[in-house]
Amino acid sequence: MSADASSPKRIALLGSGNWGSAIARIIGNNVKRLGPEKYINQIQMYCYEETLPDGRPLTGVINSTHENVKYLPGFVLPDNIVANPSLRDTVKEADLLVWVVPHNFLNRMYPDVLAGLSEGGGRPRVVNSISLIKGCDFDVKESRLKLISESIRNGLTLSQLPNASANASGVSHAPHVEVLMGANVANEVAEGQFCEATIGYDGHGDEATTISARKAANEWMDIFSTPRFVTSVCPDRPAVEMCGALKNVVALGAGFCDGLGYGGNTKAAIMRIGLLEMLRFCRTVAPNTNAETLFESCGVADLITTCYGGRNRKCAAAFVEKSMRIEGGVAVDPLVLWRGIETELLNGQKLQGTGASEEVHAVLLKSNLLKAFPLFDAIYKVQVGEIAASSLVDVLSR
Amino acid sequence: MSADASSPKRIALLGSGNWGSAIARIIGNNVKRLGPEKYINQIQMYCYEETLPDGRPLTGVINSTHENVKYLPGFVLPDNIVANPSLRDTVKEADLLVWVVPHNFLNRMYPDVLAGLSEGGGRPRVVNSISLIKGCDFDVKESRLKLISESIRNGLTLSQLPNASANASGVSHAPHVEVLMGANVANEVAEGQFCEATIGYDGHGDEATTISARKAANEWMDIFSTPRFVTSVCPDRPAVEMCGALKNVVALGAGFCDGLGYGGNTKAAIMRIGLLEMLRFCRTVAPNTNAETLFESCGVADLITTCYGGRNRKCAAAFVEKSMRIEGGVAVDPLVLWRGIETELLNGQKLQGTGASEEVHAVLLKSNLLKAFPLFDAIYKVQVGEIAASSLVDVLSR
Repeated sequence: MSADASSPKRIALLGSGNWGSAIARIIGNNVKRLGPEKYINQIQMYCYEETLPDGRPLTGVINSTHENVKYLPGFVLPDNIVANPSLRDTVKEADLLVWVVPHNFLNRMYPDVLAGLSEGGGRPRVVNSISLIKGCDFDVKESRLKLISESIRNGLTLSQLPNASANASGVSHAPHVEVLMGANVANEVAEGQFCEATIGYDGHGDEATTISARKAANEWMDIFSTPRFVTSVCPDRPAVEMCGALKNVVALGAGFCDGLGYGGNTKAAIMRIGLLEMLRFCRTVAPNTNAETLFESCGVADLITTCYGGRNRKCAAAFVEKSMRIEGGVAVDPLVLWRGIETELLNGQKLQGTGASEEVHAVLLKSNLLKAFPLFDAIYKVQVGEIAASSLVDVLSR
Repeated sequence: MSADASSPKRIALLGSGNWGSAIARIIGNNVKRLGPEKYINQIQMYCYEETLPDGRPLTGVINSTHENVKYLPGFVLPDNIVANPSLRDTVKEADLLVWVVPHNFLNRMYPDVLAGLSEGGGRPRVVNSISLIKGCDFDVKESRLKLISESIRNGLTLSQLPNASANASGVSHAPHVEVLMGANVANEVAEGQFCEATIGYDGHGDEATTISARKAANEWMDIFSTPRFVTSVCPDRPAVEMCGALKNVVALGAGFCDGLGYGGNTKAAIMRIGLLEMLRFCRTVAPNTNAETLFESCGVADLITTCYGGRNRKCAAAFVEKSMRIEGGVAVDPLVLWRGIETELLNGQKLQGTGASEEVHAVLLKSNLLKAFPLFDAIYKVQVGEIAASSLVDVLSR
């Protein structure tokens, strides 16, 4: 296979859940539209194999019916999407990796991805990645948030390959990992409702890196954009990614307001202050973050959707209502309360906002920055039962 | 009376409707708190005289019961608020004017205000104003929006005084008019719910003007702020004021989305694009408008409240639902449709968003700027029946 830059590229999709399947519809159709000179038509989609209740394997059903009956029922996948239960095989020939798996799957995926990439016929190439994964991890040692894009970049470092002959494969370490975030719920995207997304790239490095990252971001824009799924590029990759985690923290505050029965203006004030603290937090990690980035879909739009419709809002409202119903001064462990709400409202799924809030609080405490984040601080204190939800606004009274 | 700057100042409140009465509660209590060295305790509140159904005059009832039974029933007004049916008498000794009347009352008020001010014992003084009035007028001649703060400034120009001896009164033309805007519905403010507001001053003039305007804005902040009504100052007076009108245009778009049954992400995208067009529009009038101003309460917070709870949203949703229900291809004049909705949902009150949208559209058309405002353009076209509401998002597909 030819190695020059103008060869058609092969896209691999890592993940086939609700969001992965919705985005597969877009990528599959766009690759057809962009033509075989640019992209190889067939797209391998890694699918964690499951046995359906009727005994059939999920990958087999997807490939025969072109529908992800488990995670995106009712929507046809383009016929160039091929579900593949082998991660190694999925990435073998890939030039572009789209990551869209639950973030706790990542660490166990890297060895297989690396092994697969180095198997790929020794074709010299740079493999670029984009992360569609929302969420952050707290890095205790470095006292900062560990971004998923950075986890992927580290995870793909070739030195971690199981055998030393790796470099002989000709695959270069991905020089940058972009991210795609925004106000886009999988099902609304699948239904073709008008949505927007922000593609974040590293735009503040040296000139060569910035140019190459912007070029990669523009390529992702071609791959993802449709008239109904409008993407734009933004040079603040860390902020674009962090907004996705931080908005869930603000949504807890919005939910507390709802639970207390407060009016729309108080909630809007909480969201506004939350937006500013999101920006401020992004700048503790990436000081050159533009304020304008918060005007992107990943910022204000995703925040609005989450504070009005999301599960963090809903569970936070339930937390306040349950707390208020507890009478006779019986102290209830807030952790027990949250766990009950997760069982009741989320079928036991873990709530993302409370985890993110805890991590953000730990980072701010360790960096001695809590005073500059009165809202994040107050939300955490309500969440762990240190203050009553009704005290939330007291701390905001300047 | 002494004329030096340290004399206690007298505040007059021009207006006593729902918002005027809510703000009277704040100002009355703050003046007491700030003390007689700074402000004269008694605050005259101009009240357009009305006869209540039981035959009593509104001013008399307010002054005997300390409750505006017609426009803010259920809330006590501080005892230092005195309802006054005479506009001339209300402003006679005033140093600070708080304007909070329906904007179509303004033109007929200026002569009385000027006459009253010049009556005021010949005390030399500078009279400062702040406008709490939301709305804009279209100035056909100048092809731009005429801001209410500017109308007030012009209205108070002394040369317009009915008699030539005006200047002998010692009252100077107010050098600047500030504005107070934000996500604050009168009743929620009256209830003491946590709200925020933005005080806009002219911060881009020559140094002396900027310093004096900022000083005035800081004084207004003292007069208006409470722990539950948090104000901040912002140097972009025109933008602060225009956001209050422009957000109603965006709210029509949000309402169209709701009427069409679209999901939260489409609505959030419309709001996000709307926020950017609001900023862009502000810059056509005031090119040095900071992007950060849209992060103030007058920007994103007021937009959120209006797009989720306001009457423009509600009527726009009804407009779409009614349009869709019309069968058999019978064309209905959209004006008739809007008028019916106003009668049905607003008791015949005039909807602000459609007027603002029309004016904004006329300004943009005349300035040949429509192409830079695809959302405002599309909202107007839906409103006048030029395109179907379902086409709203088509124009946003870049």
